[in-house]
Amino acid sequence: MKIRTVLVSTYKKDGLVEFVRALDQLIHPQILSTGGTAKVLRTAGIEITDVSEYTGAPELFGGRIKTLHPKIEGGILYRRDKEQDAQEAKDHDIDGIDMVICNLYPFEEAIKNENITMEDALEMIDIGGPTMIRAAAKNYKDVVVVSQPSQYDMILSTLEEHDGAIPLHMRLSLAIAVFRNVAAYNIAIVDFLEHRAGNFEKFPALLVKAFEKVHPCRYGENWDQEAAFYMDKASPFGIHSLEKLWGKEISFNNYLDIDACFQLLSDLNKHEHVCAIFKHTTPNGVAVDGNSQLEACKNAFSCDPLSAFGGIWGFNKPVEPEVAKYIIEEKNIFIEVLLAPSIPKESRKVLEKKQNMRVLEFGNMLAKREVLYQNLEIRGILGGILLQDYDHAGIVKDWDEKTTRKTSTKERETLVFAMTVCKWAKSNSAVFAKVTEHGMYTIGIGAGQQSRVHVVKLAHSKALEFKHDPTGSVMATDSFFPFPDGVEAAVDAGAKAVLCPGGSIRDGEVIARAEELGISLVFTGKRVFRH
Amino acid sequence: MKIRTVLVSTYKKDGLVEFVRALDQLIHPQILSTGGTAKVLRTAGIEITDVSEYTGAPELFGGRIKTLHPKIEGGILYRRDKEQDAQEAKDHDIDGIDMVICNLYPFEEAIKNENITMEDALEMIDIGGPTMIRAAAKNYKDVVVVSQPSQYDMILSTLEEHDGAIPLHMRLSLAIAVFRNVAAYNIAIVDFLEHRAGNFEKFPALLVKAFEKVHPCRYGENWDQEAAFYMDKASPFGIHSLEKLWGKEISFNNYLDIDACFQLLSDLNKHEHVCAIFKHTTPNGVAVDGNSQLEACKNAFSCDPLSAFGGIWGFNKPVEPEVAKYIIEEKNIFIEVLLAPSIPKESRKVLEKKQNMRVLEFGNMLAKREVLYQNLEIRGILGGILLQDYDHAGIVKDWDEKTTRKTSTKERETLVFAMTVCKWAKSNSAVFAKVTEHGMYTIGIGAGQQSRVHVVKLAHSKALEFKHDPTGSVMATDSFFPFPDGVEAAVDAGAKAVLCPGGSIRDGEVIARAEELGISLVFTGKRVFRH
Repeated sequence: MKIRTVLVSTYKKDGLVEFVRALDQLIHPQILSTGGTAKVLRTAGIEITDVSEYTGAPELFGGRIKTLHPKIEGGILYRRDKEQDAQEAKDHDIDGIDMVICNLYPFEEAIKNENITMEDALEMIDIGGPTMIRAAAKNYKDVVVVSQPSQYDMILSTLEEHDGAIPLHMRLSLAIAVFRNVAAYNIAIVDFLEHRAGNFEKFPALLVKAFEKVHPCRYGENWDQEAAFYMDKASPFGIHSLEKLWGKEISFNNYLDIDACFQLLSDLNKHEHVCAIFKHTTPNGVAVDGNSQLEACKNAFSCDPLSAFGGIWGFNKPVEPEVAKYIIEEKNIFIEVLLAPSIPKESRKVLEKKQNMRVLEFGNMLAKREVLYQNLEIRGILGGILLQDYDHAGIVKDWDEKTTRKTSTKERETLVFAMTVCKWAKSNSAVFAKVTEHGMYTIGIGAGQQSRVHVVKLAHSKALEFKHDPTGSVMATDSFFPFPDGVEAAVDAGAKAVLCPGGSIRDGEVIARAEELGISLVFTGKRVFRH
Repeated sequence: MKIRTVLVSTYKKDGLVEFVRALDQLIHPQILSTGGTAKVLRTAGIEITDVSEYTGAPELFGGRIKTLHPKIEGGILYRRDKEQDAQEAKDHDIDGIDMVICNLYPFEEAIKNENITMEDALEMIDIGGPTMIRAAAKNYKDVVVVSQPSQYDMILSTLEEHDGAIPLHMRLSLAIAVFRNVAAYNIAIVDFLEHRAGNFEKFPALLVKAFEKVHPCRYGENWDQEAAFYMDKASPFGIHSLEKLWGKEISFNNYLDIDACFQLLSDLNKHEHVCAIFKHTTPNGVAVDGNSQLEACKNAFSCDPLSAFGGIWGFNKPVEPEVAKYIIEEKNIFIEVLLAPSIPKESRKVLEKKQNMRVLEFGNMLAKREVLYQNLEIRGILGGILLQDYDHAGIVKDWDEKTTRKTSTKERETLVFAMTVCKWAKSNSAVFAKVTEHGMYTIGIGAGQQSRVHVVKLAHSKALEFKHDPTGSVMATDSFFPFPDGVEAAVDAGAKAVLCPGGSIRDGEVIARAEELGISLVFTGKRVFRH
């Protein structure tokens, strides 16, 4: 196929003059153009024909109608190899347009301005552009469609290599890019109109999403799985907002841990200092402290110092130098990922000794909780997805003390703390926690068990293994006790107060047993499963 | 706004005549129409004007050009409230088009025919339709866009209620529907062209997806989370292909378990009979048997009969009546979900006694393994997704026996079986398994622990709790041993052969210790994490 006529109508002008000039020199086509594009090309000394002159129809309505004309769309769309099409084209004085260079009004960029008026936003919805490039893409067998400035160089080098032609497989790739981009363009319009108009439909019958690749992962959950990390184009904030200061590439599994760790920091952020250590997407040790980040860090580490090695460590406040020194110099702990709002200079100096450790700053993201949780949570299953609200509404629905022994203020705080950690441990989970002078910390975390009583025993055994004394501790668990044995196990361990959602058909038996054992049993009315 | 002129150009004609006739009677508009639509309306006795007569331009190229004309697009797009637009419209003899009734060439339906030629598929890519409805949607302040037959009734009743007008908020909703549908339409084209042309890009820079709601869930992972289940429109097969025979609504958490259970059945499907029981997305008991489904069922149940209650039970073969009787009559086990290729009549009679139990047939889906795993696995994280190959390539990369004691054939089979179960248990996990007369079964499954040695001990303790004898068993674990203690724990339990991926910096120490202990230690070269 020879390219005789080229139509140029672009919003973005970067690189355009150079591209069209090079095209002109390479293949000497007739060049049709519109409005602002025509002016730019003409000013640059490139000979062009105005589309309005070519069609005999003027540009109308402030540019809303420029190319929507049978001579243009027909010139793109007619099938060169059909005799009837060729004859009709001839009869109606329609010449073939063999290449379309067009990019769309930048709707997505325009709406990044939060103050844009509805009128201005609507004006940025391109109608003629998508029509032209979709027409060219449909007819890719006869037409080359250049829909992004980033394609210019590749087009020129291909034309040079192929004697002024673009091979079919590349024309098809260019066509696919068009349908993909127009899809994303329309998705951006949907997102904008729904949010601006306030009639956002959370679970529409048809859900359309556009994702932008942030970067490929070296591999996926395991070494032989290919993987990549994408941001949702509708989400200005997210894990993609975290900035890596240094360290190895962030892996697929790191991202899962970072996601969970950041959310736990967010859940506990009313406390002055939070330190949360994750391993295999489950908390491994968590502590809060009203006075000291170092205390929070030491206490979180103490919960299970064995697994804390190679873990993901998160802080809700800038990492203090003494904390950096504790981790690196005093304990020499190998950490996979460290995240915090920021890493002050003095702390950096210490942490930088570990050049493999991934160090991430998340800036003011903890203040974005509400925006972040406007997103829905996606769980992939074979051939589809489950979509749900994030579980961000708070872990206590109704605080309901079920036994005679009433909880103290400190116990209540610690139970809520333990339940918050429980929420992030894989279900079923149980967490023992204790009070410190100015805070609280976990002393035994059990996670991912198939039954309640097992997970309580597991959490207890972990507490003992790392020399914690669960006497006088509190325990929280993420769902109801199906039998009294789970409560018995908690009391055996030494817990004085137990928190659970309630809701078992044997709640009566469970409460009676707790009463007998003389502990506080409190129901929250809220389950916190996480699988 | 008064609707004076209506443009009708639809592919699907269902309900159209009735709709347009009712419109005619309600608001007496001028009706413009094209080709086939015009013929249908005229035949029904409705007075219409042909678009080609109206524009003075003929339909061309086998219908590729019908409405792409300034008189049509300008009539839709001009802003009624702008004096200059109104003047230009008048000057160029362009009348306002106030309602557009249009639905697109059914591209998605056409390509369901796997034998469709590229030429025929391309012909089904609508250009004029999307242009018209996007133009009308952009100008929703002045234009009503009716893009689906399902909207006809609502339009008529609204016109009646609002004295021949459609309120602005509804015009906006109709506009949003257009952008959403056109997005999905383009996504379908991308998927088709990529797959047909064989240049599928697995991780494109821009990823566009369309999902169709299968149904809302009663709630999400917890009671206070709203949720819904969607199928990927690009996936003909998936969990949405399973057919529920009876039982309560399938919950969000059920879907997670069904997804995992089905995939484990698929992984073990080379065995004649497989029974897999899941709880909290982790296997709770799994068995295979060369002869008897009942044996597989009994053995799977025996692993942890406590947690098997309320579990998700899957079979790779139609459920036999004796198995149904064992579950329901002999053991009276409460099962949340039961899935199998089919439930023969005689078994149904037994299972139907449990009307709350969700009973699902998955037909020939086990034969679709390759198609199913063309999908990529999606993991949602805040503001984005991780996308990866499913881990379906096989759990052994290189079978590498590291110690003097060589494994027997039976041990090798059992190790692979145990590792397959391990793959589906949340990381870190460890599985003890034993041989039966005609098969194998798990005797202790530990899952979701933060360290290797703990999970081995956990799996061991679970085996003991349910009266299994791990002496002479084998054990598999999903990642390497960071220290020799995990191997020691396995041998303490009674394992004679241990399977792991290998890859620790202390592999040497671990192998030496296994050698000392006189067991077989085998490396697979393949990690099977699942979080």
